[in-house]
Amino acid sequence: MARLVPVSDPGDPRLADYVRLRDVNLRKSLETEHGLFIAEGEKVIRRAVGTGYPARSFLMARRWVEPLADLLDEVNAPVYVADDATVEAVAGFQVHRGALASMERLPVPSVAETVRGVRRILILEDLVDHANVGSIYRCAAALGVDAVVLSPRCADPLYRRAIKVSMGAVFAVPYARMTNWHDDLGIIRGAGFGLLALTPDQSAVPLDKAPMGERVALMLGSEGDGLSSRWLAEADEAVCIPMSPAAMANGVDSLNVVAAAAIACHGLMRA
Amino acid sequence: MARLVPVSDPGDPRLADYVRLRDVNLRKSLETEHGLFIAEGEKVIRRAVGTGYPARSFLMARRWVEPLADLLDEVNAPVYVADDATVEAVAGFQVHRGALASMERLPVPSVAETVRGVRRILILEDLVDHANVGSIYRCAAALGVDAVVLSPRCADPLYRRAIKVSMGAVFAVPYARMTNWHDDLGIIRGAGFGLLALTPDQSAVPLDKAPMGERVALMLGSEGDGLSSRWLAEADEAVCIPMSPAAMANGVDSLNVVAAAAIACHGLMRA
Repeated sequence: MARLVPVSDPGDPRLADYVRLRDVNLRKSLETEHGLFIAEGEKVIRRAVGTGYPARSFLMARRWVEPLADLLDEVNAPVYVADDATVEAVAGFQVHRGALASMERLPVPSVAETVRGVRRILILEDLVDHANVGSIYRCAAALGVDAVVLSPRCADPLYRRAIKVSMGAVFAVPYARMTNWHDDLGIIRGAGFGLLALTPDQSAVPLDKAPMGERVALMLGSEGDGLSSRWLAEADEAVCIPMSPAAMANGVDSLNVVAAAAIACHGLMRA
Repeated sequence: MARLVPVSDPGDPRLADYVRLRDVNLRKSLETEHGLFIAEGEKVIRRAVGTGYPARSFLMARRWVEPLADLLDEVNAPVYVADDATVEAVAGFQVHRGALASMERLPVPSVAETVRGVRRILILEDLVDHANVGSIYRCAAALGVDAVVLSPRCADPLYRRAIKVSMGAVFAVPYARMTNWHDDLGIIRGAGFGLLALTPDQSAVPLDKAPMGERVALMLGSEGDGLSSRWLAEADEAVCIPMSPAAMANGVDSLNVVAAAAIACHGLMRA
């Protein structure tokens, strides 16, 4: 049976996991310190629980209990039930998607473990925007990328906004975070991957003509600067998405990183 | 010479074009009524002026005058100069990108005119999100799509947020808005275009294997519901982006519309 616990005081310490969900800095430190993340909305909560993340607690208005009843019955965690105003006062905004869940993070596997036995991976270097990271996971999941490796500075895929934008795909794609920006590419290469660096440079090999070996790791750079020169230099091949010559002449010569990632993931599928 | 006009009263009627830029409903009616749109930031303003849109006026803090001096000297429109607090009080938010310009809209050509003599077009049905429309124009411009045709209900590509997300690409791609959702597809077909409907349905022809004739129009549906059944039925061929079978089994079986559009525009380039 679900343990329903009525709450009405936004300052209730049992709701501390849910405070000020839009305060990025506060949330980053709070979630890291307590090893938690927030799942929002029925679909995403189901996916998080289904993936094996343990629930710490739930917070929702009464009307969201029924649609989640089967899950709440199974999971051994308190369900705090409050009116909309209380939820809003805690979270700091009106929670349209209804239910919130505070979930426990699990240990993230090492880079070596994550790439073992798989064939197609993305490596993201310093993508700091949560929505971009979430969107890229969604592409990766839908298009059959086996795993994602994040550079040390990449945004957290389990941050609420990343989860939401990914529609829960962040749970579906195994990932690792590099601990060593300098050397961890070597681990991936050592596991037999060819490293392709995606660059806007039109003198690079077009993605559709790039050699796709048995194992391919595609590296994507940050929103602003693209891949670092060090990572570009470490690649076996630089590849590009061909742009329209007219666009180049007009200065409309770039895609945003999500559009580039979508095309790249689609390209990885062909092999 | 630029006509610099110092202003300090946020209620100054000469600043009426710039009020409450984040109030979508107000802006929609105001911009329609006065036939204007707002360009934000040096790069986008340069692109708008370069495309031939006449400027009605500019509004900026003093420090943004210098970087735009050459353009302001050429254009015969008043440059309202105010401190940051005044600009913020008018616009309703802190304008990070500095300069604002109020531009005159030009008559949008008809569907028939827009598709005449071109080979690759996108047709967007009821995409209501400005950021999605802007992102799709950016993909279209970079990947060489010749023109965009919008259904009557599509979001306005000259809305500030669409322009910003597109990085000004909305100016680079000719477009038309259908006046008749029922019959305007017939005009496009009559101009010799094969109509491809993009659908998540995996029994459709994979995009990469779709027949690309001399002239191809790719139809993209709305964020939520996809293409209407009427438009699907009118297509010569339904095409899909192949999804990973594992993702389908996991329920992570869709791309967002921008990712889908990016892959589709890339696919259109090959012919």
